[in-house]
Amino acid sequence: MSELRWHPLRREWVITATHRQDRTFLPPPGHCPLCPTQPGAEPTEIDRPDFDIVVFENRFPSLSERPPRPAVEGTDLTPVASAFGRCEVVVYTPRHDITLAEVDVRRIRHLIGVWADRTRELGAVEGVAYVYVFENKGESIGVTLHHPHGQIYAYPAVPPVPAQESAAAREHRDQTGGCLWCGLMEQEERDGRRLVLRSEHWQAVVPSYARWPYEVHLTARRHAGWLHELTPSEVEDLARTLKALLLKYDRLFGFSLPYVMAVHQRPTDGGDHDAYHLHIEFYPPNRTERKLKYLAGSEAGAGAFINDTLPEETAARLRELPPQDAAELVDADELVDPEGRPLVGA
Amino acid sequence: MSELRWHPLRREWVITATHRQDRTFLPPPGHCPLCPTQPGAEPTEIDRPDFDIVVFENRFPSLSERPPRPAVEGTDLTPVASAFGRCEVVVYTPRHDITLAEVDVRRIRHLIGVWADRTRELGAVEGVAYVYVFENKGESIGVTLHHPHGQIYAYPAVPPVPAQESAAAREHRDQTGGCLWCGLMEQEERDGRRLVLRSEHWQAVVPSYARWPYEVHLTARRHAGWLHELTPSEVEDLARTLKALLLKYDRLFGFSLPYVMAVHQRPTDGGDHDAYHLHIEFYPPNRTERKLKYLAGSEAGAGAFINDTLPEETAARLRELPPQDAAELVDADELVDPEGRPLVGA
Repeated sequence: MSELRWHPLRREWVITATHRQDRTFLPPPGHCPLCPTQPGAEPTEIDRPDFDIVVFENRFPSLSERPPRPAVEGTDLTPVASAFGRCEVVVYTPRHDITLAEVDVRRIRHLIGVWADRTRELGAVEGVAYVYVFENKGESIGVTLHHPHGQIYAYPAVPPVPAQESAAAREHRDQTGGCLWCGLMEQEERDGRRLVLRSEHWQAVVPSYARWPYEVHLTARRHAGWLHELTPSEVEDLARTLKALLLKYDRLFGFSLPYVMAVHQRPTDGGDHDAYHLHIEFYPPNRTERKLKYLAGSEAGAGAFINDTLPEETAARLRELPPQDAAELVDADELVDPEGRPLVGA
Repeated sequence: MSELRWHPLRREWVITATHRQDRTFLPPPGHCPLCPTQPGAEPTEIDRPDFDIVVFENRFPSLSERPPRPAVEGTDLTPVASAFGRCEVVVYTPRHDITLAEVDVRRIRHLIGVWADRTRELGAVEGVAYVYVFENKGESIGVTLHHPHGQIYAYPAVPPVPAQESAAAREHRDQTGGCLWCGLMEQEERDGRRLVLRSEHWQAVVPSYARWPYEVHLTARRHAGWLHELTPSEVEDLARTLKALLLKYDRLFGFSLPYVMAVHQRPTDGGDHDAYHLHIEFYPPNRTERKLKYLAGSEAGAGAFINDTLPEETAARLRELPPQDAAELVDADELVDPEGRPLVGA
C-alpha cells in the first residue's frame, strides 16, 4: 500500500508506503541482494556474475508507475492522491566492500552518464515533476543495505526543497536579472575562506549558511539545469571533483564518512524553472569524529537549524586534506592493493 | 561565537553556535549537572538540595540577550545577524532516573504553568518573534543529558515551521472564514480512525499526514494561541492527557519511547497570527521496536517524507493501549514503588 497524503499545515505531500516496513534490513554477509549472482548460488537482485553499472526498480518502491488505489479517501482539507512515480536503485560496482570514494574516475564518469540518462528518460514521462538522484551512505544515516548504491526517485510533484530553491532563484532573477547560484559562486571565489575544491567546471564550498557541520555544495560553474546538459569535459571534471571531495571526507576522521548526497536538478513539471542551477549537496551527519548532529527539537519541530561549527573552519579543514587538486586523480581501475583490498585514503 | 546566517536557497536563518561543540555530553552517573546539589558535594547547575521545577539559561546557548559580534560580515546575498534571543533549560524533577511520563499530574500541571509564564515573559521581550517550548528525549534523538528536562528557545525571527503553519492557517481563514485546526479536529472526531485520546478540552490524533510513524498531534479544542491563555481546567486536562499519551508511548514497545515534543504556539512578532491554533506535536523516531526512522535522502535532500506505516493502524495501536481515559490518572506524588523505583507502565 502506498499513497500521497496532503499535509495541510506544512503544505507538502507525505508518502505513506507501508510495505516498505518489511524491506531488507542489513542482511548478513553472503546474502547481499545487490551483489552479482554467483554461478550455482541463490540469485540476487542482479542475475549476472559481473556488471559495470545496473539500474532497476526498487523492490520496495514508495512510488510506482501503476500505484495502488489509496487506502483512505481524501477530504477537502486532507486530499489523498495516488503514489505515482518511480523509485530506482543504481548499483555502480559489483564490489560489496568499497564506497563511491574508492571507485575509479572512469566508473564515476560512467555513473554520471547513467544519472543523466535516467534523468532525461524519467523527466520526459508524463506526470513526473521531479527527478532526484541521491545516495544515502552509512548506518548512521539509516542505510539498510551496505553494498554501495545510489537511488533515483521520480516524484509526481516538485518536492518542498527544490520547490523552495526554485522559487528563491526565480525571485532573485526577477529582482536582479542574475542567477542566485552564479552570484553565490562568484562571492565564494572572491572570499576564498569557504572553498574546498576548485576545478575548471565545478566549485565545492562549505556554504556560509551550512546547516550540517561538513555540508558541501558542489556547483556547476556554467548555468546548467540538468546532468544531461553537461558537456563531456564538464562530466569528466565532475567525476574527478566528486571523487576528490569524497576522498577528503574519508580522510577527515580517518574512516569512511557517512553522508546524504543530494543531486539538485531543475524540476521537469514544465513550470518556470530556468533560474534553477544544477548543484550537488552533501550532508555528513558527523559533527566530530564520534558525535553526530541530530535533527531534534529546534530542527524537526521549528525548522531552525543550529550548526555547532564555523563554515570557515570546516572548509579550511577539508581544503587542506589531500587531494587538493581533482586533476591529479588517475583514470585507473578501482584503486585496490595487490590483495584486492580497497586503498582507502591511498 | 554565535550568529545567524541567511540561507538564500531555503530562505531561512541558520544559527551558527560553535561554543556548543564542547557542551556536556552524556556525563557519567554522579556528575549530572541537572541533579540537585548534595550537601558537601561539587555544585551542579542547580545550587540547592531539592526543587520542584527550575528554569535557567542554557550554559551553552545558541541565542542570547547580549549576543557576540558575528564572526563574519554579511553580504547582500548572505546577510548575517546577531544571535539575539534566549535559550532556557527547564528541569521539572530532581529525580535523575524518571521521565515526564512518570511525573505525577500535579507536577505536570505546574510545569505547564511554568511554560505559560515563560512564554508570556519571553514573548513580551522586544525582538523576540517566537517562543518555542520543546523536549528532546532519548539518546536516539540526540540528547546529551539524561536527566529529564525540557527547553525553551526565544527566537528573533519566526522559525520556518510555525511560519509555514501560520501562513497556511491565514490563507485557510481568508478563503473559508474558519480555523484550519478546528476544521481538522472536527474531521478527526467524525472519522474516528486516527483518534488516540479524547478529553474535554484536548484531542490527540495520529494525523492522516503523519511524517513519523507514531507522530501525535495534541490540539486544544478551543481556538487558543498561547499556553498562558488556557483556563485552569484546560491546563488540568492537558496535564492528564499529556501524561496519558506518554504512558501509551512507553507501553507501545515496552521501553521508554524517545521523542521530540514540540509545543507550537502563536508567534509573538506582532504579525497577523490570529488564525494560529495552539497544539503540541510529538515525533518519536521509532518505526518499530528496534528500527528507527531516519531523515535521509528523500527527507533531508528533497523534503519529501516517507512514512512506512499507516496512520489509521498506528493510531489504533496507541488508542488501545492503557490508559484509554486521561481522567483516570491520579493527582498523586510521583508514581514510585515502595523502593522508590519509578512505576513504568504501572
